[in-house]
Amino acid sequence: MMKFNEQEKIDSVKGALALRPQIEEIVDGICENGYKNIVWLGIGGTWASAQQATVHMKEKTGIETWAENAAEYLTTGNKRIGEGSVVITSSVTGNTIEVVEAVKKAKEAGATVIGFIDAPEAALAKMVDHVISYKQNEQLKFFMTADRFMKNAGEFDDYDEMYAEFDQYLPQALVEVEKAAEPFAVEFAKKHWNDDIHYFVGAGNQWGATYSYAMCYWEEQLWIKTKSITSPEFFHGMFEIVTKETPVTVYVGEDRQRKLSERVVNFLPRICGNYTIIDTKDYELKGISEKYRGDISHLVMHAVNNRIDVHMEDETKHPMEIRRYYRALDY
Amino acid sequence: MMKFNEQEKIDSVKGALALRPQIEEIVDGICENGYKNIVWLGIGGTWASAQQATVHMKEKTGIETWAENAAEYLTTGNKRIGEGSVVITSSVTGNTIEVVEAVKKAKEAGATVIGFIDAPEAALAKMVDHVISYKQNEQLKFFMTADRFMKNAGEFDDYDEMYAEFDQYLPQALVEVEKAAEPFAVEFAKKHWNDDIHYFVGAGNQWGATYSYAMCYWEEQLWIKTKSITSPEFFHGMFEIVTKETPVTVYVGEDRQRKLSERVVNFLPRICGNYTIIDTKDYELKGISEKYRGDISHLVMHAVNNRIDVHMEDETKHPMEIRRYYRALDY
Repeated sequence: MMKFNEQEKIDSVKGALALRPQIEEIVDGICENGYKNIVWLGIGGTWASAQQATVHMKEKTGIETWAENAAEYLTTGNKRIGEGSVVITSSVTGNTIEVVEAVKKAKEAGATVIGFIDAPEAALAKMVDHVISYKQNEQLKFFMTADRFMKNAGEFDDYDEMYAEFDQYLPQALVEVEKAAEPFAVEFAKKHWNDDIHYFVGAGNQWGATYSYAMCYWEEQLWIKTKSITSPEFFHGMFEIVTKETPVTVYVGEDRQRKLSERVVNFLPRICGNYTIIDTKDYELKGISEKYRGDISHLVMHAVNNRIDVHMEDETKHPMEIRRYYRALDY
Repeated sequence: MMKFNEQEKIDSVKGALALRPQIEEIVDGICENGYKNIVWLGIGGTWASAQQATVHMKEKTGIETWAENAAEYLTTGNKRIGEGSVVITSSVTGNTIEVVEAVKKAKEAGATVIGFIDAPEAALAKMVDHVISYKQNEQLKFFMTADRFMKNAGEFDDYDEMYAEFDQYLPQALVEVEKAAEPFAVEFAKKHWNDDIHYFVGAGNQWGATYSYAMCYWEEQLWIKTKSITSPEFFHGMFEIVTKETPVTVYVGEDRQRKLSERVVNFLPRICGNYTIIDTKDYELKGISEKYRGDISHLVMHAVNNRIDVHMEDETKHPMEIRRYYRALDY
């Protein structure tokens, strides 16, 4: 398998899971003091992860929580963010300007900020109240944080059991997904590398990832046009432009919004001859109980996409690290 | 001007504004009893309007409020919706299945529902706690409701002055926008009727309308591919696929997110030779004070789009009332 270092991938997820005691200590401290609401703050890819964390929480929680776009917060503002707010954000470089400014504004309003800042030397890492520096695995870090808040609120009885399973089985299970997806990814890239535009459909905790996969990978890194749409919204207008040859990929997860994507899957063959279904159910996830599969559907999707990326990069002969404009120009 | 009945349009907005005493009575009654949060419920076009009402409120309010997608509510659920929640929704036909089911679920959870149901005979009109039946003007109805809640919360001191202006001047001002936009709309449609794909960018209270204009009009009614993106997110990936010939339209409003769209406007000429800026500031709005223009930017955009629609329909020779699939098939 091209560009696939199994041990590195296993270690990466293991290391992320090993952040849990640190996350728990931070969250438990906040919960002891009390808080008012939980704000997932981001822009672009992090905003997408923020949306995933939010929909994940909504399945169980009564806590007030939402995804806040950093640029929108900086302009429109949000009076719900203040004393008692817990703002959680993430940044690889620690210098995404909108996030830096939004964290400053939230802190001025009285919020407590938890930052997953991959670069510990970044100024942002010093601005936040609690910092955790570890590379990648943004969604897992967010979900672990969300889950601890819900456990402490009495909304997640089997938190310990679930994470015991994840600690033991998740790292290997996810590399097995990559291996199992490989033949599919090879074919998919061969078929779609030259698409004029590609449509991505998803729902639930897959939605944020669907949005960012289309935008942050295919558009930004492969320079291929895309449109992403949520599964329920697909039926409220967008599907009218789908005909036989329109390339449509549907990501089907196993959380409560699964049925919204199944509806697309069931209808699509009537109007489209160029669709792809990626269903997390088709992947084994050895050691993970049925009831926890929905909580990690987005990681399964991510693993499949990792293999698609490798082969898209190869088929397009477009190195994914080049950018035309992003951080290459002033704007 | 083709398909333009000035008096009918004036009467339509006047009639919508005249709903205000009815809206005030309903809202005042709810406020007297007290409430916990305000939920804007919809799907497709109404979900877009729900997002507009939400961002409009965020400019001023400390009230907990958000846009809830009906299909997502039906699957993921939302524990914040219950006793003390005020759910506000809208439906032209009153039989949008997701909205009907979501209203049922919200009522079972204990919420109070205000419904703008254009068809008074629909079952949905009987299910809601408070119904107002009047054709079109969904955004205006939502904004009037939002504004009354904010006034009652002490967050909108000049509510009476603003609406006095709107009552007197808005209906005429909006038809004047349509007239002023006419030559532009003719040219725009000539230039873009045959686009492979068209990009729409917007922010703030324009965003919901930008999303739904792309999806519910160009995709659904004209069968032209589109992608819509918020102005801040444009810079986080999507812009990498923009080159000289990519058709991009930016809607610039006058609310607090204006500067996010101005950033796109300022950058676009460096990378694109096929862009259009629609700036609400270019339209006079006689009688409307500067400080209230931001609150109705989305209506100005709507007026401009009305003219674009007429000419797109004519140029494409695609009658906008036909649907391939929507409500034409079972799905």
